[in-house]
Amino acid sequence: MDYSKLALEKHKEWKGKLDIQTKMKIETREDLSTCYTPGVAAPCLEIKKDKRNSYIYTGRQNLVAVISDGSAVLGLGNIGPEAGMPVMEGKCALFKALANVDAFPICLNTQDTDALVEIISSLEPTFGGINLEDIAAPRCFEVERRLQEKMNIPVFHDDQHGTAIVVSSALINALKIVKKDHPTIVINGAGSAGCAIAKLILKMKLGNVILCDIQGILNKEDKLTSGQRDLIDSLNEENRKGTLKDAMKNADVFIGVSAGHIVSKEMIQSMNDKPIVFAMANPVPEIEPELAKEAGAYIIGTGRSDHPNQINNVLAFPGIFKGALQVQATCINDAMKQAAVYAIASLIPEEELNPENIIVSPLKEGVADVVSKAVAQAAVETGVVRKW
Amino acid sequence: MDYSKLALEKHKEWKGKLDIQTKMKIETREDLSTCYTPGVAAPCLEIKKDKRNSYIYTGRQNLVAVISDGSAVLGLGNIGPEAGMPVMEGKCALFKALANVDAFPICLNTQDTDALVEIISSLEPTFGGINLEDIAAPRCFEVERRLQEKMNIPVFHDDQHGTAIVVSSALINALKIVKKDHPTIVINGAGSAGCAIAKLILKMKLGNVILCDIQGILNKEDKLTSGQRDLIDSLNEENRKGTLKDAMKNADVFIGVSAGHIVSKEMIQSMNDKPIVFAMANPVPEIEPELAKEAGAYIIGTGRSDHPNQINNVLAFPGIFKGALQVQATCINDAMKQAAVYAIASLIPEEELNPENIIVSPLKEGVADVVSKAVAQAAVETGVVRKW
Repeated sequence: MDYSKLALEKHKEWKGKLDIQTKMKIETREDLSTCYTPGVAAPCLEIKKDKRNSYIYTGRQNLVAVISDGSAVLGLGNIGPEAGMPVMEGKCALFKALANVDAFPICLNTQDTDALVEIISSLEPTFGGINLEDIAAPRCFEVERRLQEKMNIPVFHDDQHGTAIVVSSALINALKIVKKDHPTIVINGAGSAGCAIAKLILKMKLGNVILCDIQGILNKEDKLTSGQRDLIDSLNEENRKGTLKDAMKNADVFIGVSAGHIVSKEMIQSMNDKPIVFAMANPVPEIEPELAKEAGAYIIGTGRSDHPNQINNVLAFPGIFKGALQVQATCINDAMKQAAVYAIASLIPEEELNPENIIVSPLKEGVADVVSKAVAQAAVETGVVRKW
Repeated sequence: MDYSKLALEKHKEWKGKLDIQTKMKIETREDLSTCYTPGVAAPCLEIKKDKRNSYIYTGRQNLVAVISDGSAVLGLGNIGPEAGMPVMEGKCALFKALANVDAFPICLNTQDTDALVEIISSLEPTFGGINLEDIAAPRCFEVERRLQEKMNIPVFHDDQHGTAIVVSSALINALKIVKKDHPTIVINGAGSAGCAIAKLILKMKLGNVILCDIQGILNKEDKLTSGQRDLIDSLNEENRKGTLKDAMKNADVFIGVSAGHIVSKEMIQSMNDKPIVFAMANPVPEIEPELAKEAGAYIIGTGRSDHPNQINNVLAFPGIFKGALQVQATCINDAMKQAAVYAIASLIPEEELNPENIIVSPLKEGVADVVSKAVAQAAVETGVVRKW
């Protein structure tokens, strides 16, 4: 189904998807004197004494910024900050609807790395966490890294880590079904999502990863981005060379975060027994699920809601930030990401796992609670929570 | 009454005064596909075609940022951005409660003029207007001026203009009661509020203005801020010199935006017949209203809610931004400010004017509607609305 017409009508009707409400009535002089002057001076002075009191008296204790420069929005490319806003508002709406986390969308009219770092870091007193969104690679790597160094609240580029987490959850469950231990995993697309998926899969020792871009298998000799350079030594155990087609031969898993219709039936047929195919390009997948099935794919996942096994970031980010905020985590570290991976995977009990059921629906009730608990616990265990 | 204890308890209970709600349910795959991917691509592409469509498909059509650097919060001084947040949240709550305008509070951790200009201007794609708040003088003048030059949405420093507008409304009504035509008006306090009041009163030709700071009457020979320099030639028609005491002798109006208890009974007694005294320092006024009355003050206004004639910015900013947003004004110009002055003054019908009733309560229903209509009309008449 094409949602364009409906979405356009609805967006016009909504006049923005978020509504900033007050938590109290302001009808009497007493109301005014309590929530505004003169009473408001009291919480101000408590925070002046100790900045950490801002986590008690202001909204930042449950508030995330969803920030973009509009440079890589959905699959639409560099459409600019104004045009990126409907996505950021939507993401904020999901934070609220799925995890009861307040989130506010900010689209910035600069795409300069230094400016982005300065602007976003200046927002620290306002928020409890920063969700970076739809910032183009390779700028996104540097922006995230520098912000993480500079800021004392979690900074999380969802296109990288959210995607990596949900793919890893789906992969863990799929590998349980096919009972494979050290599979060869081909990732096609070596931008922000592809690199982050590779990094997390390697960190979690889920298999041998071959990373491909539009030129084919990534090798040390290639001109690499900083994100790719950090990974290259851990990739491609057999030192394969060639095209995506060469990579897929005798591979166990294909993960696509690239472009529509670039995988053929023959490529699937060249894979090992019981191939796992996650074709997540959106809206057009790397291979249509029906065609992949015909070619023998045993487990198929896509980014789409009209097929089984929808691999969707929406499973991760609401619960991750909820957990981080609950314990006032100062970052989202690897332990927290991995805790999220296992929490999401656990939402399908082993006895219910089957090739058409490897990952839970993002709309299933309670997902964010399970994820947030695991993430909060990992933050506490690794000691990355605010000291009081 | 001291609201400190109650306010502290309530702020703890509220956990932030704002709640970012969604305008739609997100319960089904169809909901998800309409407000988020894939449907959301449609409004994105409409905005990509023409940025102005962001006023149709996103929240900025009714969204104001309340932005501070925490450098001059209430009368508490430079308490920092974290500590300023309860005031900014309170202001946003008032925008919603009184004018149904969405407002979001942002406290920035820089007090550098260039950085503030860069950061705030980068937020333009997100908002329909910028309310600057509690930024110290003289930085506030330059920040506002440069932002107004750079941005194509209204930028309004409320501590300056909101105060000036409400004082002017009260003054117009007070002068009607005492039937004075070209009064001598002493303003004590030559920071952002004092300068803005002087500027607007002069623009509206309400009288001869003598501006005083802690050293006494401001003169050309003094070391002046840029805000004061812009005014100095229009001030002090009789070229008086000396202290505040000298200034008040034979004055008709005293307007205090300075500090508590610096005006004596004798100073009030030295004023002309039927003196008008606006003692607005908060929480302690320049002279206690009871004392001013004993000394013969005929009309007394303060910033406090426990006395008649509360001169409160809350009367102005919600309606001013509501009006500006309704017509997509690109600035808030002098005509709009003056329209707001007369609209607020008009809320007390002439037959109801008396020394204890010169200005309406900020909580009276319909204030923002009257103000917004006048402001919107002035914007249209002066041609400062977005062209489509």
